[in-house]
Amino acid sequence: MPSRHAPAYIAVVGPGDSATAAALATAEQVGALLAQAGAVLVCGGLGGVMEAACRGASEAGGTTLGILPGSDRAAANRWVTIVVATGLGELRNGLVVRSADAVIAAAGEYGTLSEIALALKAGKPVLGLGTWDIRGVREAADPAEAVALALG
Amino acid sequence: MPSRHAPAYIAVVGPGDSATAAALATAEQVGALLAQAGAVLVCGGLGGVMEAACRGASEAGGTTLGILPGSDRAAANRWVTIVVATGLGELRNGLVVRSADAVIAAAGEYGTLSEIALALKAGKPVLGLGTWDIRGVREAADPAEAVALALG
Amino acid sequence: MPSRHAPAYIAVVGPGDSATAAALATAEQVGALLAQAGAVLVCGGLGGVMEAACRGASEAGGTTLGILPGSDRAAANRWVTIVVATGLGELRNGLVVRSADAVIAAAGEYGTLSEIALALKAGKPVLGLGTWDIRGVREAADPAEAVALALG
Amino acid sequence: MPSRHAPAYIAVVGPGDSATAAALATAEQVGALLAQAGAVLVCGGLGGVMEAACRGASEAGGTTLGILPGSDRAAANRWVTIVVATGLGELRNGLVVRSADAVIAAAGEYGTLSEIALALKAGKPVLGLGTWDIRGVREAADPAEAVALALG
Repeated sequence: MPSRHAPAYIAVVGPGDSATAAALATAEQVGALLAQAGAVLVCGGLGGVMEAACRGASEAGGTTLGILPGSDRAAANRWVTIVVATGLGELRNGLVVRSADAVIAAAGEYGTLSEIALALKAGKPVLGLGTWDIRGVREAADPAEAVALALG
Repeated sequence: MPSRHAPAYIAVVGPGDSATAAALATAEQVGALLAQAGAVLVCGGLGGVMEAACRGASEAGGTTLGILPGSDRAAANRWVTIVVATGLGELRNGLVVRSADAVIAAAGEYGTLSEIALALKAGKPVLGLGTWDIRGVREAADPAEAVALALG
Repeated sequence: MPSRHAPAYIAVVGPGDSATAAALATAEQVGALLAQAGAVLVCGGLGGVMEAACRGASEAGGTTLGILPGSDRAAANRWVTIVVATGLGELRNGLVVRSADAVIAAAGEYGTLSEIALALKAGKPVLGLGTWDIRGVREAADPAEAVALALG
Repeated sequence: MPSRHAPAYIAVVGPGDSATAAALATAEQVGALLAQAGAVLVCGGLGGVMEAACRGASEAGGTTLGILPGSDRAAANRWVTIVVATGLGELRNGLVVRSADAVIAAAGEYGTLSEIALALKAGKPVLGLGTWDIRGVREAADPAEAVALALG
């Protein structure tokens, strides 16, 4: 557990290029709300939901951590504050989950599903915004509720 | 792709200690059938479905590869031929999937779900035997069908 | 390669608890100089040389990235800006190296040697300040020279 | 610790394509001796010293485990019994070390040095045959001595 004054780290996960406009808008709101709450936003560092969430956080003055599958930092979206270029491929999904206290999933494809599963396996809260219907995922009504629940 | 004469590597994934007797019986049959087909059985190396599958394979003269979450080889079940003690925790699930040409899931909890998701993300066939109902998983009628489909 | 305006990421590696006072003073200077140059300081996130470097960077207004071996963020030293809790054990050394454009080694034990070796294997510059005498490591006269060479 | 009757796992590490004829001959002898002693030979699965050691072990009836940097099993040399295709790049060196009780280094470049360092960090015996001159590496007179010391 982080100390009382340490920031929360919250992962925002969801599809990359295949994200819908609605998912992007949701992710951007989530990012902004996390930044306003002083949380560090953790994500996979690429496009789609990851980029939208980082943009929202960044424009609200927040800090974002992008954990990339490849080994080239330049692949990170421009709103990532700190880049970790892992070279681990999809195994980096596990590091996104490990780095976070809770996970917010906005929509989602198979990579997202792996992150949801790993988070639930680790006993971390998973909040859903139109994502996979998996036992253990708590579907939130909107970004504000997802962020409030993630920050516990 | 392995060469024409190389053995297939098929992962068998499913719950550990929480496996039901039915899941264990299914896994053992899958293991035996994989061994009879000359495939290498890949799994997470621990108990439950992993152990039952390895026992089935081993008793049929097959070879099993157990990829453990911890760093102590002694944690492997006794039917594992070759142990890789990764010390990676649940990230080893990704290595189970990477090592395999296809995945057969017998029942399953969250760790299993992460393996299913990673396999589908990588475009590998996933055959289900009473496992998570996820788009992309092909539910098989019985172990024989699952093994036949996995071996393609 | 990062874009022209992206910050450089420079790893500072060296012993933890066994660091000498001289190594700590060196590391702190390296950290301060990296921060003044606008670089992100990457390290293993724990004590000794890692902590001294982070303190130097932090007090000079810089950003530090700590990539921990364990899965508990609270293990990071207090001068780490962003923590990645990997749970990978010593394999996280490889992520420290991958995340960096160059490595500065201040003194060093076996973990440090593994980072030097992985950096040289990847073709990244390694600058030494009283560290292992390994072909390929460029020994620097002082922290200023090490930082100048690392920033190339 | 493996149980009393479990086989020892011994890693053989050294250069790939750049290996000299002498290093290859040494590695092949090491492999044969390990097989005769009933040990499982662990290596990085590629060419050079890795291949020579596997050939020696295989021709003596032994079992070899090749832990590849890439994600394609077909990259393994033909003497590997069981392949783990990690997709982790050089981080797989850490898995070679973790999978082994002791390490024998025949010659060696930077990748080898990283394996030596990680093994020493983990407190595992490292036997050298013309490899890096690092404190903690015990240089052996010949393959027979290296294998005897590795098997403890």
